[in-house]
This record gives sequence, C-alpha cells and structure tokens, in this order.
Amino acid sequence: MFVRELSREECIGLVSSNHIGRLACARNDQPYVVPIQYAYSTNRLYGFSMPGRKVDWMRTNPRVCVEVDELAGRESWKSAVIYGRYRELADTREGHDEHMHAWSLLEKRTNWWEPGGLKPVEEGVAAASHHLFFVIDIDEMTGRAAGEDRVDLASH
Amino acid sequence: MFVRELSREECIGLVSSNHIGRLACARNDQPYVVPIQYAYSTNRLYGFSMPGRKVDWMRTNPRVCVEVDELAGRESWKSAVIYGRYRELADTREGHDEHMHAWSLLEKRTNWWEPGGLKPVEEGVAAASHHLFFVIDIDEMTGRAAGEDRVDLASH
Repeated sequence: MFVRELSREECIGLVSSNHIGRLACARNDQPYVVPIQYAYSTNRLYGFSMPGRKVDWMRTNPRVCVEVDELAGRESWKSAVIYGRYRELADTREGHDEHMHAWSLLEKRTNWWEPGGLKPVEEGVAAASHHLFFVIDIDEMTGRAAGEDRVDLASH
Repeated sequence: MFVRELSREECIGLVSSNHIGRLACARNDQPYVVPIQYAYSTNRLYGFSMPGRKVDWMRTNPRVCVEVDELAGRESWKSAVIYGRYRELADTREGHDEHMHAWSLLEKRTNWWEPGGLKPVEEGVAAASHHLFFVIDIDEMTGRAAGEDRVDLASH
C-alpha cells in the first residue's frame, strides 16, 4: 500500500461529498477540536453553531483547521485538511444574501448529530435554538489517500 | 431529543472502546487537525506517527486536543474532547518500559488507515517506517451525548 497526495480536484471532491468534519480552533496556543456539520460551496464551508467555546475562540482568533475524511478500510482511506478563516454571518441587510445562501445549503441536512448545534439543556430550560451561521473561507486545502499502487503519486 | 453531558466514566468508556480520534495541535495560534490511531491506557493515550508537521508542532507546543466520537444516527451520538500534553517516548533505557507498553497496546491494531503512519513516498524511495511513539497525558476529558430523554442530565 502506498500513500499519495490528493490533487486539489480530489480534495474538493472529498470535501464536497461529505458533510461532517472536525473543526479545530486555538486560543493562546491551546487547540480545541469538535465535530461540525458543514456545506461546501466554492472555496468556503458554511456551518452553524450555538454560542459556546468554539465560537468564542474563533471570534478571538479566526484561524481554523478543518479535517474531512473517509476511513473505509485498510486499503481505502482519504483525508483532507483545510486551513481557513472563520467569519460570522450576521443577518443584516449587507449579509442577507450570503446568510440565505448558507441556510439554503444547510437546511438540506438536519442538525441531529451536531454537538455544537444543541447544547446540553438545564432543568426547566427549553432547548431553544439560537444558532448562528458562519463561513470558513478556505486558504489552503491538501489531502492524502491510501491506495494499492503509485498512480498519481505526487512529490511533496 | 436532548443533549447531555457525559460523566467521566462514560467518557472513559467512549475513548477506551474506540481507536480513531482527531488530534489537534497548534503553533502560533494556527490550529492543525489530523486523524490518529490511539490506544487508551489509564489517563493517557498512546499513539505513533511518522515525523512531520504534527510532530514538529507538538515538539514546539505540547498542548493538544483529541476528539473521539461515535456518530451513529439522529438520536444516537457521543463525542468526547480531551485536553492533554504531548510527550515523546524515546526508546532509551529510562523510557524502555513505557515504550514497550505503548507498543504492546498499539500492535494489536495495524496502521492501515493512519495518514501520519505512512507518508507519501517519492519515486525510488522505499516506504520504510521510521515512526515514533508518543503519549498524550490527559489533563481534562469531557463529553456530550444525544438522547431521547433527560436521564442522567448533568448541569454544566
């Protein structure tokens, strides 16, 4: 088995065909990583979250890293790593179009799984949803895949 | 559906019964996240890697975050987040016992899937394995789970 670099097109294929990734942010050089649900659109990821630690940290330091993978088996896995910047989508007049675009992409999925999408409720408090939308603008995207031969092997 | 905090015992159960996590490290407040294979042992994770970006970064800044999850479906997911510190296991006389312990735990799994375990090969270069062993000493571990009711709901 060999491991090879993914082309940019292959990275886009991997990221756009998946909707769950792991988002890492950092504050004072302490990293933090959680699963997120996202929707890929040209050169960006759209996501949503409840207010909380990751949003607080990304507001302070917008530099993030998102990892997306398909770990199917011994001879078949792919992983892409994205460096990007967090940007919050305010539902203002200026941001309305992108806010609606994010929503239209994300509403196709439910938020059943996302730990950031529903915070633990406290007794007597309804689990109201006060989520916000955000964008990860992609600066760099690379990936690797395992395969049986060296086809498409790129130097690095 | 409600989301609740996991107890420490539930976090240990989740982390010890899985072997794939996502490891985030950071340098100059730039986070980086990749999948890793690990083995849990009391209050630590053992792992291995080829030299590369994550090892370089963790040598500079040992503070890491590891996320482990089971995303089984709409009403059934769990996620644990670990804050810890990276420590390399040198195969010296002093470190021999822990090095062997790490190896004994990790050898039960093959490294088929781990992007850090096999770097892309270049033409004419054999894919020799020069991996190193490391420990993540766990400082803090928390988790959340989705469920249909509020049993075991903890305040937070």
